[in-house]
Amino acid sequence: MAKLITPRGEDYSRWYTDLVTQGKLADYSPVRGCMVIRPHGYALWENMQQVLDGMFKATGHQNAYFPLFIPKSFLAKEAEHVDGFAKECAIVTHSRLKATEVDGKTTLIPDPESALEEELVIRPTSETIIYSMFAKWVQSHRDLPLLINQWANVVRWEMRTRLFLRTMEFLWQEGHTAHATYDEAEEETQRMLQVYATFAEEHMAVPVVCGVKSESEKFAGAKHTLCIEALMQDRRALQAGTSHNLGQNFAKAFDLKYQNENGEWEHAWNTSWGVSTRLVGALIMTHSDDNGLVLPPRLAPLQVVVVPIWKGKDPRQDILEAAAAVTKELTDAGVRVKLDDRDNVNPGFKFHEWELQGVPLRVELGPKDLEKNSVVCVSRIDRNKTFVGRDELAARVPELLQSIQDGMLATAREWRDASTFDVDTWDDFLGRIEKPDGFLLSHWCGKAECEARIQEETKATIRCLAFDQPDESGSCVRCGEPSSKRAHFAKAY
Amino acid sequence: MAKLITPRGEDYSRWYTDLVTQGKLADYSPVRGCMVIRPHGYALWENMQQVLDGMFKATGHQNAYFPLFIPKSFLAKEAEHVDGFAKECAIVTHSRLKATEVDGKTTLIPDPESALEEELVIRPTSETIIYSMFAKWVQSHRDLPLLINQWANVVRWEMRTRLFLRTMEFLWQEGHTAHATYDEAEEETQRMLQVYATFAEEHMAVPVVCGVKSESEKFAGAKHTLCIEALMQDRRALQAGTSHNLGQNFAKAFDLKYQNENGEWEHAWNTSWGVSTRLVGALIMTHSDDNGLVLPPRLAPLQVVVVPIWKGKDPRQDILEAAAAVTKELTDAGVRVKLDDRDNVNPGFKFHEWELQGVPLRVELGPKDLEKNSVVCVSRIDRNKTFVGRDELAARVPELLQSIQDGMLATAREWRDASTFDVDTWDDFLGRIEKPDGFLLSHWCGKAECEARIQEETKATIRCLAFDQPDESGSCVRCGEPSSKRAHFAKAY
Repeated sequence: MAKLITPRGEDYSRWYTDLVTQGKLADYSPVRGCMVIRPHGYALWENMQQVLDGMFKATGHQNAYFPLFIPKSFLAKEAEHVDGFAKECAIVTHSRLKATEVDGKTTLIPDPESALEEELVIRPTSETIIYSMFAKWVQSHRDLPLLINQWANVVRWEMRTRLFLRTMEFLWQEGHTAHATYDEAEEETQRMLQVYATFAEEHMAVPVVCGVKSESEKFAGAKHTLCIEALMQDRRALQAGTSHNLGQNFAKAFDLKYQNENGEWEHAWNTSWGVSTRLVGALIMTHSDDNGLVLPPRLAPLQVVVVPIWKGKDPRQDILEAAAAVTKELTDAGVRVKLDDRDNVNPGFKFHEWELQGVPLRVELGPKDLEKNSVVCVSRIDRNKTFVGRDELAARVPELLQSIQDGMLATAREWRDASTFDVDTWDDFLGRIEKPDGFLLSHWCGKAECEARIQEETKATIRCLAFDQPDESGSCVRCGEPSSKRAHFAKAY
Repeated sequence: MAKLITPRGEDYSRWYTDLVTQGKLADYSPVRGCMVIRPHGYALWENMQQVLDGMFKATGHQNAYFPLFIPKSFLAKEAEHVDGFAKECAIVTHSRLKATEVDGKTTLIPDPESALEEELVIRPTSETIIYSMFAKWVQSHRDLPLLINQWANVVRWEMRTRLFLRTMEFLWQEGHTAHATYDEAEEETQRMLQVYATFAEEHMAVPVVCGVKSESEKFAGAKHTLCIEALMQDRRALQAGTSHNLGQNFAKAFDLKYQNENGEWEHAWNTSWGVSTRLVGALIMTHSDDNGLVLPPRLAPLQVVVVPIWKGKDPRQDILEAAAAVTKELTDAGVRVKLDDRDNVNPGFKFHEWELQGVPLRVELGPKDLEKNSVVCVSRIDRNKTFVGRDELAARVPELLQSIQDGMLATAREWRDASTFDVDTWDDFLGRIEKPDGFLLSHWCGKAECEARIQEETKATIRCLAFDQPDESGSCVRCGEPSSKRAHFAKAY
């Protein structure tokens, strides 16, 4: 039997790690801070990629691939950008290992003669290298907009890492675009945030708050940063995606110019936007329970598992044949389904295993079902049973999956809303952030010093200034200065 | 107008570079030896990936993702492996840049305080890190076979690079498997070579020779290496894919063991196999011509371009509407098609541009075609015209594409066969390899020294010992010693 999963109530953090490792989504690697994404986790990521890639292409973007290496001088060209990334990056300095004697033992060292003329940084993000290429490709206003996306690995030298949520190397996509005007760039920034929000809600079943980051929290080099923020089951927030309006900062640093219709040269306007394998962590921490993963049907690598059930004298062969036929019917109906016909483990073991893996729907077929020409469908979210006649299968199973998908979003939204509070006094703020209680909607004066002080005192950060937060006059929860809108505060991953 | 492409006859190497850059497949990057894959080139790679990925999954493999970094001690564990890769690899030594004064100027240097305890190598291939994980996951014979594939970037510090063919960083897939017996591993090694050969011939329309590498040319750490070898238009060979039987070399180095049915621990048997973005280069150099790229319909990002044609008083609106309707019909029939309705360039310009980009079929629709309710289909490979009635479009266009695909393979095979020679004397060998003439089938004594001497004297290498080469007694083309089979010699990329 598999090891037991630590219950959420006992230790949320251990529960999460147990789920990721025992659910075979990922494993620790021998390289500090880097994980191995195992087939089950990678299949989930592939499904996310496929949906997102379709959404990017539908909004006019094309994929391309840029180098892993960034010359250190490139990083240095945009002042805020280098400040943001130079302190935690992997630096390549040599191109050859040579065997040498150290303390009487043969060991490999970087060959001093292979020292690079200019050190290379492993991309923590690719603005610098990409806009240097855009500068080569863009001449005329007719070359704009230029709408590019890249699926790639990036490296940030994080000291404290957690599987999927924060790893030194992670997989992501980074969109990079160039436009003729500020307005077009801003429209793109908003459009891609909306793509992320739609993806999170409709596919991941994760409700998100859309808004803008405070100056202190924006991307290093951006004019401003938009984000989607989700709330995990332990009432900590998680930034699930960002979309940056870069203004002309990088265009100026890399001389990215175009000739407008009057033949005058102008700097282009850029945006960049990204989501990463961190989304897998968000998915797990929004839906899963003490029995294991709970995956939304739209992204689950396996949507349905068919488990045939027999005992002693039951007509085993007939049941197996019927289960195989059910599996085929569902496959033909476009469902991702698998028949678990192992005979070395009992049905209870199978139930446990597939629940741990998060398969949304289990189809059971035993002797009584065979007689009645029906099956039992068991939902992963509440173990509710639905009896479905064999002739309705192809129509009913997709409906059941859709209702699980809808139910997951509704539950997550209800829970998120119940974990969001208007907080008007500092005492209330302190009490609620201590636990933490979730999103605290509090007035904020708009000053970076006040924001920093709140963070220092409580570890809460401003997750965003939400778009749909109404204007409302009030006074800053910390300093009492006037404020016209509440911010979303929370402790965050 | 676009710049002229250097004709193949004038300078094959410049022709290739012109095609890659002007066909917008790839571009030089600011990082020495690294290229940027542009949208057109990346779309081609995505199509290749999709087909290959389907073939891998159909043969029972699952995708996963392993770290970019390999601790240098891991590389050192397999003796031949480290010899093969330590001399040209990117080495990460630090994790932070710091600003410092050098010659009175502020510059960024790797912060000495951030020096890593153990240097990390950017993966040149992932045997070491992957088999160390397999050792953790495999306990019982029931865990075998373990069939994993990874799509990833890798880095090899090449001094002389060429777009797609040899770049410092490249994209590839690497399959890694573990088996209970030598025979199963060998079966897998052969199976995956066959997958590559099928992909090359049926999708790329590139005929390949399947065989085994000589000891000198095998993968560093393998028991033996199988390969597919193609012949480019300049009569140089190109290794298009390899499949390695790794024996127990890595299993022993990383203690990858399983308990057999009798409860005894045994080392597993491994295979690895890979193809890379180099295939894009192979595709170009097999089919393209002086007018630009020629892409096989199965992989072409765009299979058909529809060009409406009108002059002066022609019923422009009617023609445009008919062209749009044709485009829709073809899209509905599953064809990757685009309507080029630009009115700022003339049809001749469009023809030129789409030929350069390698679109297999052009559909022209002018006033006469409108009257006759038909279109003109022009093949990229020979500019042959086919008149197709509007009501037959959805059926005929896929047929035409298939015949282009078949024609490309037939032409390439004919040409390859006409460039393959039995060579029995050293004089003949010298004369033919000088040009070069293509594959020279010559007897070889089997000695590494003789092979090295031939390479030194002529730059020809043994591409493989082909599977379908018949046994035949003869004497080594260089030293005259007895030989039982001819080897494929060629100059190679």
